[in-house]
Amino acid sequence: MSTIPESVKVGQNTVFEKNVTIGENVVIGHNTVILEGTEIGDNVTIGSNCVLGIKPNVSARMRKTEQKKDKLIIESGTRIGHLVSIYAGTQISQNVFVGDQASIRENVRIGNTSVVGRSAVVELNSTIGRACTIQTLAYITGDTTLEDDVFIGPCVSMSNDKYMGAKPYELEGPFIKKGAKIGNNASLLPGIIIGQETIVGAGSVVTKDVGDYKVIAGVPSKDIHS
Amino acid sequence: MSTIPESVKVGQNTVFEKNVTIGENVVIGHNTVILEGTEIGDNVTIGSNCVLGIKPNVSARMRKTEQKKDKLIIESGTRIGHLVSIYAGTQISQNVFVGDQASIRENVRIGNTSVVGRSAVVELNSTIGRACTIQTLAYITGDTTLEDDVFIGPCVSMSNDKYMGAKPYELEGPFIKKGAKIGNNASLLPGIIIGQETIVGAGSVVTKDVGDYKVIAGVPSKDIHS
Amino acid sequence: MSTIPESVKVGQNTVFEKNVTIGENVVIGHNTVILEGTEIGDNVTIGSNCVLGIKPNVSARMRKTEQKKDKLIIESGTRIGHLVSIYAGTQISQNVFVGDQASIRENVRIGNTSVVGRSAVVELNSTIGRACTIQTLAYITGDTTLEDDVFIGPCVSMSNDKYMGAKPYELEGPFIKKGAKIGNNASLLPGIIIGQETIVGAGSVVTKDVGDYKVIAGVPSKDIHS
Repeated sequence: MSTIPESVKVGQNTVFEKNVTIGENVVIGHNTVILEGTEIGDNVTIGSNCVLGIKPNVSARMRKTEQKKDKLIIESGTRIGHLVSIYAGTQISQNVFVGDQASIRENVRIGNTSVVGRSAVVELNSTIGRACTIQTLAYITGDTTLEDDVFIGPCVSMSNDKYMGAKPYELEGPFIKKGAKIGNNASLLPGIIIGQETIVGAGSVVTKDVGDYKVIAGVPSKDIHS
Repeated sequence: MSTIPESVKVGQNTVFEKNVTIGENVVIGHNTVILEGTEIGDNVTIGSNCVLGIKPNVSARMRKTEQKKDKLIIESGTRIGHLVSIYAGTQISQNVFVGDQASIRENVRIGNTSVVGRSAVVELNSTIGRACTIQTLAYITGDTTLEDDVFIGPCVSMSNDKYMGAKPYELEGPFIKKGAKIGNNASLLPGIIIGQETIVGAGSVVTKDVGDYKVIAGVPSKDIHS
Repeated sequence: MSTIPESVKVGQNTVFEKNVTIGENVVIGHNTVILEGTEIGDNVTIGSNCVLGIKPNVSARMRKTEQKKDKLIIESGTRIGHLVSIYAGTQISQNVFVGDQASIRENVRIGNTSVVGRSAVVELNSTIGRACTIQTLAYITGDTTLEDDVFIGPCVSMSNDKYMGAKPYELEGPFIKKGAKIGNNASLLPGIIIGQETIVGAGSVVTKDVGDYKVIAGVPSKDIHS
């Protein structure tokens, strides 16, 4: 059974599976589905028509992850929009904001006060630091790291598989250092390192590692500051 | 209480909050949520699993808007797809089409007969003229203006913050004049003006204002007609 | 009436319209809507908050299709994620995987074991072969063909209307031959043919047909192998 404190406000047709834990003063919308084992902290707000705590799929054509955790944890003060999907095995820290129609896979950690924009996708095994902004429709591929204070513009695209499924390969997403800013609709290739406080122009295609404090733009992107 | 005329056809598990107004011959799907104060005109069609009339979030890390209206208005003859989210403080005019999984924020006005494509996003404070087409997965950033008859291709990306969150800044989206056409996956920078009936090629990155009746393409985009 | 075998496991608040056919050992989540006439094969898994079997809209400003089939068919062993929308008149073959928040239009055929990624969109009249991978947030425009074993990277964009709505025109999507691989966020123009096992680099804009076994990249894309 799931126990729901009296201070929690729940909409109509919302479904709680078993072993869900809910803190004080939580607000949950209508028609939302909270799946087995999900843990929701105090003062969390969740919209309508969400699906939270999804067990990862295991398919012959999709890779497996070793999960450290087996449930979804949403910490205190976090706000989740409407029509959002989030997987089990992921931890959303305190005072995070997740926009409507966003999707977050398993084995992800999102640091305090970060923002995951509307319709953005964060794939499995990724780590998002504190105070990061991931804008609308941006795509954080699997096995990506964003350090603290990173800004990912709208519609930014990343990949983590340089052989595009053709060979067995250790998948590797970008590694984006503290305070870097990626302009809208830029494309980042697998395993790319973007240096601290580096700025990547809108629409750039980044094919190589970039050092700290650079400003780059173009296809392929080049230093435009020196 | 919300009053629902007898001519309205409503699916199962649909939730109406209080003070919802619904016209004649409206059709609403299953599991849809119509939030407080929403006004729906005659002959409107709404799909299943939508969330309509969302109150804007106010977060320390997100900017506030001064809203002129405090409810969602959907005018007569408009059709809303499935799994759509639309905010309060927005007006969707007559005979508009909003595709499945699209999302429209607060303080937006969409003119008669315009199309907002499947999975497209329209951010806050934007004005869309009459007979515009916003294609699938296109992103209309906040504070954007589309005059009448504008065509935004699939996956077009825009931004409205040239400092990418680094400084306080008056956010400014693109201003796209009557009849302009933006090719698929083009990127538009903050505050860019695109002239009347100008054509922007697919995949272009537009970094400067463009005059009327131009044809531009490339990264950064250049005139390819003269 | 719809008949549901005893071996089927259905969540709460799930809606079945009339004439739905469901095979053995099917699992369906909560708050999902299965519309009139949908056929679901054995061992299919469907998530929560989906809308399946949507009747195509007919609007003055949207084109009509001649549909060969009038219902949605999902064949055995296929797995559909959460918050997915799929139209009537489409056939999803065996052991296909459709990610969360994906959307598939009418008159589409998807071959055995293919993957349609999270938040990807497949528009009307498109044919996807066997063992294809369509990655997250990729956009398959209408009237597109993917032969077998094609890889479409994340955020790839396509278009099918070279006049962007300005003239009557036979819409034509890309034709992508067996084993071709399209890098993330590449843009493909209307009617482009991509040759067998050709590789298109990330962020490329493909403006002309490309032969078999090529490697191309850039804006506009050029052969980078010879």
